[in-house]
Amino acid sequence: MTVRFPSNIDIKKGFQVQLYESREDIRKAKIVRGRSINLALSHRGREALKHIGMEEKIVSKGIPMKARMIHSLSGKRSPIPYGKKDQYILSVDRANLNKELLTEFFLMTVMNITVLRCQTPLSRPGGEEVQVNADFVVGCDGAFSVVRRQFLRQSRFNYSQTYIPHGYMELTMPPLDGQFALAPNFLHIWPRNTFMMIALPNLDKTFTCTLFMPFDEFDKITTGEQVLDLFQTYFPDAVPLIGADALKRDYFRLPAQAMVSVKCSPYHIGDSCVLMGDAAHAMVPFYGQGMNAGFEDCLVFDELMDQLNDDFGAVLPEFSRVRVPDAQAIVDLAMYNYIEMRAHVNSRWFRFRKHLDNFLHFLMPTTMIPLYTMVTFTRTRYHEALKRWHWQNKCTHSLQRLNNTIKKYMYGVV
Amino acid sequence: MTVRFPSNIDIKKGFQVQLYESREDIRKAKIVRGRSINLALSHRGREALKHIGMEEKIVSKGIPMKARMIHSLSGKRSPIPYGKKDQYILSVDRANLNKELLTEFFLMTVMNITVLRCQTPLSRPGGEEVQVNADFVVGCDGAFSVVRRQFLRQSRFNYSQTYIPHGYMELTMPPLDGQFALAPNFLHIWPRNTFMMIALPNLDKTFTCTLFMPFDEFDKITTGEQVLDLFQTYFPDAVPLIGADALKRDYFRLPAQAMVSVKCSPYHIGDSCVLMGDAAHAMVPFYGQGMNAGFEDCLVFDELMDQLNDDFGAVLPEFSRVRVPDAQAIVDLAMYNYIEMRAHVNSRWFRFRKHLDNFLHFLMPTTMIPLYTMVTFTRTRYHEALKRWHWQNKCTHSLQRLNNTIKKYMYGVV
Repeated sequence: MTVRFPSNIDIKKGFQVQLYESREDIRKAKIVRGRSINLALSHRGREALKHIGMEEKIVSKGIPMKARMIHSLSGKRSPIPYGKKDQYILSVDRANLNKELLTEFFLMTVMNITVLRCQTPLSRPGGEEVQVNADFVVGCDGAFSVVRRQFLRQSRFNYSQTYIPHGYMELTMPPLDGQFALAPNFLHIWPRNTFMMIALPNLDKTFTCTLFMPFDEFDKITTGEQVLDLFQTYFPDAVPLIGADALKRDYFRLPAQAMVSVKCSPYHIGDSCVLMGDAAHAMVPFYGQGMNAGFEDCLVFDELMDQLNDDFGAVLPEFSRVRVPDAQAIVDLAMYNYIEMRAHVNSRWFRFRKHLDNFLHFLMPTTMIPLYTMVTFTRTRYHEALKRWHWQNKCTHSLQRLNNTIKKYMYGVV
Repeated sequence: MTVRFPSNIDIKKGFQVQLYESREDIRKAKIVRGRSINLALSHRGREALKHIGMEEKIVSKGIPMKARMIHSLSGKRSPIPYGKKDQYILSVDRANLNKELLTEFFLMTVMNITVLRCQTPLSRPGGEEVQVNADFVVGCDGAFSVVRRQFLRQSRFNYSQTYIPHGYMELTMPPLDGQFALAPNFLHIWPRNTFMMIALPNLDKTFTCTLFMPFDEFDKITTGEQVLDLFQTYFPDAVPLIGADALKRDYFRLPAQAMVSVKCSPYHIGDSCVLMGDAAHAMVPFYGQGMNAGFEDCLVFDELMDQLNDDFGAVLPEFSRVRVPDAQAIVDLAMYNYIEMRAHVNSRWFRFRKHLDNFLHFLMPTTMIPLYTMVTFTRTRYHEALKRWHWQNKCTHSLQRLNNTIKKYMYGVV
């Protein structure tokens, strides 16, 4: 990690903090390449932002998405709500979010640290290497964390990184006659089983379309005509909206990007180092929880700091104990959604289940809560949401069986 | 990896090879600390040794083990054969094996390499760092492979390392009146559910006892009296054989050692680097296949080199394609045996299943082959053995159900 702007900051709890960032200052940089353009913000992320008084600032620049909008091959569009009428997720701009957070030094509210003792070499291929002396190091340095590399040298550190066979590529759908080209308050999905496209709205009335496809398939396409062919075949309604020429050009701008899932345990070394966010638990983007889980890490850490009187020796093991199972649950759920979003979402059964879940939730609002609701609109611990979901599934199946038995008894129908 | 004895060797296929080894020359060193003392050699390992004309040399210094010998808490001893009467595994001395292999440069038969281009920094904490220029690098550098660290920087490299909660500790059981203190041609097991002890015979008529126990439990024991207590309670028959004083002393000689399971994919980078052995697939020691799988890697690689005319560009991707699923299968099976050996082996059901499997194998020798036999006494690809085992289990269950149905029909018994 090349040090671009180490900053000395004294914050909230009286710790002295130094921030190291390998990318250039996003507030001054023009183009940020190779990262997704927009992110889904939901309850957990908002709670963390609220905690530092920044919720409104971010939310006001986000676009509510109340439902998925499924685009079938024939061009039919069917909405599937995310939750109740007043529940939505927000499409927020990554660049703007980063700018605001850097300005407010949000991340610092958890990095309550004096930088003095613990030695961690920070470097990047091509960058200079820096030796940092600190009492305490927080590694919030993403899926390819440099800080985490030190963890790998410790005994009994469990670690896994798994790449999925799919890559992703972003394309822009411009405004149409000055307006959004598609209904703006939706997360648009074109599920095509082995691959899919999604589109999220931006403040400038464009949509960012993301194509998810196996790398093998990306590799096969080498000419503009082949790109057009692919889109005409699978996403015909999107072709005029993105534009044939733009498609042929933009497809070759950047190679498809890889997606990695990272699990590890524990998240700390002694009382001197802790991992948070993607560094601790990178996930595939299919549950829209990556940023939210990372922000919630901060909240959980802050809550433990309060409970345990800012004693790092007690907070760190507790943070690992509490947070590891939750993070692993959402990493697994994101992987599960990787299949659900591109394949199941297409099926009648899926839509029936979503409606059944919502109906049962309406009947028994505190007993039967849809998984998506628990994950997205509450702070139910992720691993509890997962456990509860399994339990609810059993109940639903029992209900269905009971229903079949009654039908059979009353009407002789199986 | 500190270079202790780089050696220039011209071997078999005419490649020029340099060997780097971080440990001091085992042929000159006195004590090798922190590694298990003996290893189980079986068919796959022997086939590799045979290929380089070293089988007899190693086998002649090994001690055949024809069966497990289960020690119950009451002191009862029950043998469970590994296979047919003439099938056995061998307890071999790690130090002697290493010496012989170093002398014969066995590992080199696969490292058919000229050392020229590919840059790999080799270093160990505390050791000097060496930059090696080579056309081709083979990383056979163990579970904590330095070469593998370079793989982690590649995109789309899948990797996992998992530590089990158990540690292990080795203790020596001396000869009794100049003879083996226990029957020598067995692998002795004291299964105690959450933990266990095993003992393997050595040429000098000692046994090496290995205690497997959760680290938590190891940590609780801090005095000689507590050690004695543990052994009196769980391994009473072993106490007089190891000796109370030796137990109290030797337990504190070295801390319990960790055990790690490593999976990764692919095993190669381009046409210039490949991982083999524990570097590619470290496994917990409970199937006795770690060394055998590593040696078989060499055989598989050599077979591919012959098939593909020593073309590294073709051999390397094929090696990954063929070997990854097999290695992952045996890593999983070793983890499964981690439970089977200390818990199931204790149960009547386990012994009944072993006998049933052997009986079915006797009736249908080519259709129903016990998993242990496929893994240990054949070169059936590991992942095929695993698949076949699942299939055979289904058959066995069907047979049992059929049997129950017949019983019910004929005698009215369920």
